[in-house]
Amino acid sequence: MKKPVYILNGPNLNLLGQREPEIYGTTTLADIQAQCEASAAEHGLTITFHQSNDEGRLVTLIQEARTKAGALIINAGAYTHTSVALLDALQVLDIPIIEVHLSNIFKREPFRHHSYISTVATSLLCGFGAQGYIMALNALAPIREEG
Amino acid sequence: MKKPVYILNGPNLNLLGQREPEIYGTTTLADIQAQCEASAAEHGLTITFHQSNDEGRLVTLIQEARTKAGALIINAGAYTHTSVALLDALQVLDIPIIEVHLSNIFKREPFRHHSYISTVATSLLCGFGAQGYIMALNALAPIREEG
Amino acid sequence: MKKPVYILNGPNLNLLGQREPEIYGTTTLADIQAQCEASAAEHGLTITFHQSNDEGRLVTLIQEARTKAGALIINAGAYTHTSVALLDALQVLDIPIIEVHLSNIFKREPFRHHSYISTVATSLLCGFGAQGYIMALNALAPIREEG
Amino acid sequence: MKKPVYILNGPNLNLLGQREPEIYGTTTLADIQAQCEASAAEHGLTITFHQSNDEGRLVTLIQEARTKAGALIINAGAYTHTSVALLDALQVLDIPIIEVHLSNIFKREPFRHHSYISTVATSLLCGFGAQGYIMALNALAPIREEG
Amino acid sequence: MKKPVYILNGPNLNLLGQREPEIYGTTTLADIQAQCEASAAEHGLTITFHQSNDEGRLVTLIQEARTKAGALIINAGAYTHTSVALLDALQVLDIPIIEVHLSNIFKREPFRHHSYISTVATSLLCGFGAQGYIMALNALAPIREEG
Amino acid sequence: MKKPVYILNGPNLNLLGQREPEIYGTTTLADIQAQCEASAAEHGLTITFHQSNDEGRLVTLIQEARTKAGALIINAGAYTHTSVALLDALQVLDIPIIEVHLSNIFKREPFRHHSYISTVATSLLCGFGAQGYIMALNALAPIREEG
Amino acid sequence: MKKPVYILNGPNLNLLGQREPEIYGTTTLADIQAQCEASAAEHGLTITFHQSNDEGRLVTLIQEARTKAGALIINAGAYTHTSVALLDALQVLDIPIIEVHLSNIFKREPFRHHSYISTVATSLLCGFGAQGYIMALNALAPIREEG
Amino acid sequence: MKKPVYILNGPNLNLLGQREPEIYGTTTLADIQAQCEASAAEHGLTITFHQSNDEGRLVTLIQEARTKAGALIINAGAYTHTSVALLDALQVLDIPIIEVHLSNIFKREPFRHHSYISTVATSLLCGFGAQGYIMALNALAPIREEG
Amino acid sequence: MKKPVYILNGPNLNLLGQREPEIYGTTTLADIQAQCEASAAEHGLTITFHQSNDEGRLVTLIQEARTKAGALIINAGAYTHTSVALLDALQVLDIPIIEVHLSNIFKREPFRHHSYISTVATSLLCGFGAQGYIMALNALAPIREEG
Amino acid sequence: MKKPVYILNGPNLNLLGQREPEIYGTTTLADIQAQCEASAAEHGLTITFHQSNDEGRLVTLIQEARTKAGALIINAGAYTHTSVALLDALQVLDIPIIEVHLSNIFKREPFRHHSYISTVATSLLCGFGAQGYIMALNALAPIREEG
Amino acid sequence: MKKPVYILNGPNLNLLGQREPEIYGTTTLADIQAQCEASAAEHGLTITFHQSNDEGRLVTLIQEARTKAGALIINAGAYTHTSVALLDALQVLDIPIIEVHLSNIFKREPFRHHSYISTVATSLLCGFGAQGYIMALNALAPIREEG
Amino acid sequence: MKKPVYILNGPNLNLLGQREPEIYGTTTLADIQAQCEASAAEHGLTITFHQSNDEGRLVTLIQEARTKAGALIINAGAYTHTSVALLDALQVLDIPIIEVHLSNIFKREPFRHHSYISTVATSLLCGFGAQGYIMALNALAPIREEG
Repeated sequence: MKKPVYILNGPNLNLLGQREPEIYGTTTLADIQAQCEASAAEHGLTITFHQSNDEGRLVTLIQEARTKAGALIINAGAYTHTSVALLDALQVLDIPIIEVHLSNIFKREPFRHHSYISTVATSLLCGFGAQGYIMALNALAPIREEG
Repeated sequence: MKKPVYILNGPNLNLLGQREPEIYGTTTLADIQAQCEASAAEHGLTITFHQSNDEGRLVTLIQEARTKAGALIINAGAYTHTSVALLDALQVLDIPIIEVHLSNIFKREPFRHHSYISTVATSLLCGFGAQGYIMALNALAPIREEG
Repeated sequence: MKKPVYILNGPNLNLLGQREPEIYGTTTLADIQAQCEASAAEHGLTITFHQSNDEGRLVTLIQEARTKAGALIINAGAYTHTSVALLDALQVLDIPIIEVHLSNIFKREPFRHHSYISTVATSLLCGFGAQGYIMALNALAPIREEG
Repeated sequence: MKKPVYILNGPNLNLLGQREPEIYGTTTLADIQAQCEASAAEHGLTITFHQSNDEGRLVTLIQEARTKAGALIINAGAYTHTSVALLDALQVLDIPIIEVHLSNIFKREPFRHHSYISTVATSLLCGFGAQGYIMALNALAPIREEG
Repeated sequence: MKKPVYILNGPNLNLLGQREPEIYGTTTLADIQAQCEASAAEHGLTITFHQSNDEGRLVTLIQEARTKAGALIINAGAYTHTSVALLDALQVLDIPIIEVHLSNIFKREPFRHHSYISTVATSLLCGFGAQGYIMALNALAPIREEG
Repeated sequence: MKKPVYILNGPNLNLLGQREPEIYGTTTLADIQAQCEASAAEHGLTITFHQSNDEGRLVTLIQEARTKAGALIINAGAYTHTSVALLDALQVLDIPIIEVHLSNIFKREPFRHHSYISTVATSLLCGFGAQGYIMALNALAPIREEG
Repeated sequence: MKKPVYILNGPNLNLLGQREPEIYGTTTLADIQAQCEASAAEHGLTITFHQSNDEGRLVTLIQEARTKAGALIINAGAYTHTSVALLDALQVLDIPIIEVHLSNIFKREPFRHHSYISTVATSLLCGFGAQGYIMALNALAPIREEG
Repeated sequence: MKKPVYILNGPNLNLLGQREPEIYGTTTLADIQAQCEASAAEHGLTITFHQSNDEGRLVTLIQEARTKAGALIINAGAYTHTSVALLDALQVLDIPIIEVHLSNIFKREPFRHHSYISTVATSLLCGFGAQGYIMALNALAPIREEG
Repeated sequence: MKKPVYILNGPNLNLLGQREPEIYGTTTLADIQAQCEASAAEHGLTITFHQSNDEGRLVTLIQEARTKAGALIINAGAYTHTSVALLDALQVLDIPIIEVHLSNIFKREPFRHHSYISTVATSLLCGFGAQGYIMALNALAPIREEG
Repeated sequence: MKKPVYILNGPNLNLLGQREPEIYGTTTLADIQAQCEASAAEHGLTITFHQSNDEGRLVTLIQEARTKAGALIINAGAYTHTSVALLDALQVLDIPIIEVHLSNIFKREPFRHHSYISTVATSLLCGFGAQGYIMALNALAPIREEG
Repeated sequence: MKKPVYILNGPNLNLLGQREPEIYGTTTLADIQAQCEASAAEHGLTITFHQSNDEGRLVTLIQEARTKAGALIINAGAYTHTSVALLDALQVLDIPIIEVHLSNIFKREPFRHHSYISTVATSLLCGFGAQGYIMALNALAPIREEG
Repeated sequence: MKKPVYILNGPNLNLLGQREPEIYGTTTLADIQAQCEASAAEHGLTITFHQSNDEGRLVTLIQEARTKAGALIINAGAYTHTSVALLDALQVLDIPIIEVHLSNIFKREPFRHHSYISTVATSLLCGFGAQGYIMALNALAPIREEG
């Protein structure tokens, strides 16, 4: 039996669908979780889905993923740009890591163009909105099937 | 009936009045809270006053202010200079945001000259000591009265 | 009847599968083209697939896409990091633009961390190898169906 | 008997209320002066109010304030960002100096984020519009009463 | 009847034709004024021509142009590179602004490559010598005729 | 008999009048060529007019101008900011070189503020739209008449 | 009776001995704690030993050390490079502070070469592995004996 | 008969001897003028001595020196670090220019380490206090005698 | 039988001997080719000699060299400093690569001090004029003889 | 029989105990040498102790250590921050290298924050005063015993 | 009896008068020494005059000056810009230090604009040629007479 | 009879052939000297060959070369990147100067990419190993024969 895919979400992603719906749409993080669960099921995968506003909590969840997860999908939100602690936690994992952002971070303020996560992630996708999570899961599917 | 003014304080501000009293005076954060309550009462306002050393906790309090507060006064302490997560949380608010610092941060080390908060705050005041909180409340009063 | 998806490839991508196969695998650009055609067909899409070592030729192809394509997938190779001319050509398009890179460019030399393409692309994915092209096509499918 | 509070205004502030009223409102500098005089009177203070487009004139006014003023409120406009001469003149004063800006300068162009004035001012407030002048006067009141 | 074109000249331009004639030629600023007057007359325009070594005086002249001029031609000399005050004064104008330099400033010292004026001017020409003023007037002619 | 004025246009200028007409107007590059021919005829000049999306082609055209042209007007488009090869080709010419840009490049993104062309051009004009080409031809007229 | 030496450990140090044992060895943080206790006992000292992934928790522990500890040994892990909040908390202490890192941080990525902790620590040692903690304790011994 | 030595003093030097006498001593600018006159007389020289807080006035004085002075001694105060206009005015002179500063500017804030004046002055001396003016006059004496 | 040495020349090198002969001498690129052929013959080598103003063409020639050449000598001219595409093409080669420049590029403008080619070339020589090509061929000779 | 530990000291360390004793204490370098000899003897080690103001002499001593020393302790003083020659000499050693500084160099001027030595040293300690040498010797003891 | 003034000269100053006499004149360092001796005698001073190409030797001479000299005049030549070791040696002296340069170093290459010596020297003069040494001695005379 | 070619070698080159022979080969500096002598003899040249770890000694040798050498070959090792003193000494020479490095310095650490020597050398070669010295001698031969 396979290990679940961990899907971790950073600060402020809990507000998704509530803030600026004209920009971000009305999809909530709960909707994304539901879509991910459905999509994972299609591939015979399971997921463990978390959101936290807390950098330390996210470090601990990544450490947990080290032994319990088969792959990691991470949207670290603002911590993407500031957290060496997340980088260090991720560096230890030897499972696929996919970095996801809802928006195209390279069209935003310059301080969002640098990601500590990217330097250790296997791959990155951004600017696909909520669909990005499903694309990441799909990308893991063939790998997982061999896993 | 009006929504309260949220007054949020970042890391190490809980030590106020205890550390280096010859510099910072002997006013404690509890004293400031009391003065703010008195001052708010004069204006017919109420306040919600918090301090936390934890970045994630502060993000959550700002999110709470999004629906519960009529205005926000924030002294984010050290997170002023490092937290994109606070910036993201504040960016969603559509209420007045006043950034306060006890000292004049532009007379201190270069890394304190940049504030992520300033880029989303309505206004900023610094270098007025504890009086700055009262000034911020006073500045909100005319707005609030119309609110 | 729908307009085709243009898939443009920049300099040196014609060598794919021949150089450093232990790193990049043995998939050639012709293989990728074939996979894209198959995948597009599944979605009821057609594709127009080009590779050029020439910056001016790529500019002309993007200009052509302005009127002939329904969407654009672009892996501009080295020109990603140096070509304002490609940026200018892309800026005029009002169709979805997906930027693709085989490797995670953020794990490579610093001069590969900046992309002129990203500042105008709708979305970006990198580090998925040849699979990235298929993911980009899949991402376009729901958009195209409405198109 | 107390010395007056000097209130100095730099280049282009004489246009206040005339340019871009939809942004800056219709309050003129004369209005501000009148409000300041009224507010000062309430605190038993007097004010000396000047505006100049000329850097050298402002230096001379600050020098004058050295012996004649009890406190200084300064909105140096564009010279805030370029004038070491103002900095040198201010450095000699041993009275309270409050830096005021109508807008939040940290939300504007990068070259407006650095202030030579801030490095010698006692305190700073910005983004409160014309109200900022009154806040500055109020902040001086308790000090002045002891003076 | 049309408003005049203001032509403003910054510091040291009063020495034109006297200093380094082998480089700058023997044309004086009075010669340029005369040529501008002649050229303006051909287009049915009038001009108001000033030179000042004083930054504050130039600010005041630009403010005057705000209500009195139909267009502005400015060679701000050294203040081009250092004056935010001129930038602020110009920003308020809603008439055409043409920035002129006698020499090609991009062939000179690096600190002359940045112009605060350029960021608000309608257009820029440099390296045409005294002829540049006439070219600027000619460029305004068709606009003025419609004005 | 005089040598023609070479007028060279870089990448994407072939789209003029087609893209974003609300910004750039509906004048096409063919219109500009026609206007230039008419204007040149008035001065007894002839022109040779080219556009290319290809950096190498533009280098070759500049080399051709070295022996065949009496003057050069160049709008190098995006290559303005990136091409040392154009700079090298231009450096050899001993005829007048006028750099033209339709828009004021100093009001656009920072990477457009630097021009390799400027460091070798005789003069520069920008922000005059299509009129800039005619102004450049006019500026050459007196020189040409003596040539 | 003497106050204990506080030994604080930052994010990811809880994984010591489990991750990459071929690099970091098999010594766990519990082993280090045991060695520190043994070593402290030899010097007649006691220790208080903590690890946290949470920046806010570390700030609170340093605040606690202000009144309860006789000296502080800190390995702040990733927060070394990003936390102004830790710097502020440490700045208040008037006891010896020794900064410890297992590896030589100056042989690693550039962003690890800067430490906010170093600017307030009494002394620093790095690159000695787990032995560094014992060295730090030994260094405190003579000071403590006089304390 | 010889032309006088112009001695020009920039902003805030009129306060000399009044501000911070424990640092700068009690020598006033009038004292320095008197000492310079005495010293010049010994060398058979005359001096013309000015102070202004106004950049434009200093430009005009330098222009005057172009035809009237045999040499120039300049302490431009704060304008040393910010004035391209002074640089341009000085660049035209073909007489000896000696830059003087009372303090050693290289021991002060970083923005005082760069001098526009130095790039055109013949020589520089700083850190000798009021004596520096006399040294500069002495240095000119042998040149003047040949002049 | 041995593979030929590819000798590739970048933009503007076709003008050699024609432009600024007082600086670059009268040796043409054809002369250099002839000298290289003669020198190669002495060593029992053959050469393939190309020049192009076109970046894409040079990429294609380097790709061709990957399978057809025994060694590569490259003077990429201006593309040395701007072309990541050439770097990528060269990175795949596993034959000796010698970078040649006629002039000492480190005595020229700062933007010529950085070479993308150098980071993948085996060795570099510059400032020897046309002789540099022959030196490069000689340096390859002993290697080639063993090849 | 074991090889000695080389202890090398750079420029100005010969003045230790004589200069600024209120800061650095009265311990001389001879005292440190004596303490090191005593401490080494306890561990059954011998030391070779040198000081030189001369960069070349220090390079030669490090070269000597390559064959004669079992370990190296180095306080390179000012050469720490400027000497690539020391870095090159150290890079060849395959024995433990401990970098020592008496003061915490990260609390001093910015140019002292970078150490060429650190990039090749095994470990570093600073801010422990003369005790640092003994700590370094102690750290080598267990290694040496196995050596 | 007074201590001598140490006059120290750095690398390449021994060539003075031999190299580029058209620029530097024909005065040799021996001539300067003779002039300094004559000038010192007039003031009742003695001098100790040294030149060395060796950084370490200069450090040792400065250390010697610490106890033996009444004042120090130093022209450190190239080491001015690179030697922290000289800075450290000078920092210990509590006698007047005058930095001298023959040429105006601020008119030369950018790397000559920074001086480590300036940050500890009492005063600086440059651009006076050999006369600068005599000016420095004269400046010391009044101080010495009181000494 | 001709003057010899000076061949100067900087710090750590005396270790050649002893350190990391798998990288640098087993050729010693004595071997290189012997090869150079043989090669020089073929060209009818003589050589003077030196190595020093001492910057000051190398300055003196270059000064000696000024009058005694017909040409200079220099591998300044680490001083290449740090020594303005060598630059100054070389600047005086009016004989050919060839800079040699065994390795391609542009493939190494960033601080090795800048050479003070290059800015005054006639030509440069690197990455040819010991063969580079012979190539440099050969390059001098034709010049020397005319000398």
